[in-house]
Amino acid sequence: MSAPHDPQPWPLLSSRQGPDLVICRARFDRLRNPRTGAAFDRLVLEAPDWVNVIAVTPEREVVLVKQYRFGTGAVALEIPGGVLDPGEDSRAAAERELREESGFTAQRWRYLGSVQANPAFLTNTCHHWLAEDARRTESELALDEGEDIAVELVPAADLPAYVADGRIAHSLVVAALARWIDLRA
Amino acid sequence: MSAPHDPQPWPLLSSRQGPDLVICRARFDRLRNPRTGAAFDRLVLEAPDWVNVIAVTPEREVVLVKQYRFGTGAVALEIPGGVLDPGEDSRAAAERELREESGFTAQRWRYLGSVQANPAFLTNTCHHWLAEDARRTESELALDEGEDIAVELVPAADLPAYVADGRIAHSLVVAALARWIDLRA
Repeated sequence: MSAPHDPQPWPLLSSRQGPDLVICRARFDRLRNPRTGAAFDRLVLEAPDWVNVIAVTPEREVVLVKQYRFGTGAVALEIPGGVLDPGEDSRAAAERELREESGFTAQRWRYLGSVQANPAFLTNTCHHWLAEDARRTESELALDEGEDIAVELVPAADLPAYVADGRIAHSLVVAALARWIDLRA
Repeated sequence: MSAPHDPQPWPLLSSRQGPDLVICRARFDRLRNPRTGAAFDRLVLEAPDWVNVIAVTPEREVVLVKQYRFGTGAVALEIPGGVLDPGEDSRAAAERELREESGFTAQRWRYLGSVQANPAFLTNTCHHWLAEDARRTESELALDEGEDIAVELVPAADLPAYVADGRIAHSLVVAALARWIDLRA
């Protein structure tokens, strides 16, 4: 094993804008590897921050949303979440996404932490919020034409089994739930 | 609240290839929302499956790798992982990535499950493996010119604190660790 060293930031040599991918923008950075001196082009996808919300009812049920997902081409079960609007803070986005996607609102909010979506090529962070005493207060979901969502309530105690058997499989949902419950099968 | 319904798959109307982004390929699918009848273009990034590995030494230390990440523009602390080669199964990829990135190998392997990277726009799955009795058996890391990695051993018992304070922040690392330890702060 060669002598341990501390990996350093790679100097940025140049950057060129790539295609607009609607939900993110591609950028190609040219960087120098400080270990080898060689230069490389690396993809970066610039995306706004995301948020997701664990909303728990007084009966200890968690609010899940079911929708068709285009990446996997399948209906998925997730906690509510979405993209921060420009200038919006993550708490406001969490309240909005919960209300719009599920019709639920809550009085008690607690920040659970955040993860980097994928530091290898995505620039953004996903914030996790816990909403307690969540209740259905809206008579209709606020879905736009491009959404089709159904709400499903699942006992909190059942969630580890949902993760273990893949009924809940979204990495960012698992990362959020891990801040709040023990997910070991 | 309108009558509950079960979200259905969206019929695919057409699909066009987008730019090659090196680590994935963009595709634009045109789909019809079965709820509203309206048609939408949606981004899909086609990517090969990924794997990551929790490797634990006989002293209950976990093998972490430190490297500069281009998406976030910062040095990150993660478990070893990477992309499956064509035709490679996830166990073989886990063994290879662990060996190449850290110089460690292990005899005892256990599959911990998987997550979908991001079902909203990514097609792929990340597989999680646990490698027990991991030992440093390689005298050199097998890094290519485009990598710069340092190995760091951290007591397993300290990992929840690393996640809580953001020293470990990669969503897929958190998702893997949650299968093996209780991450609640």
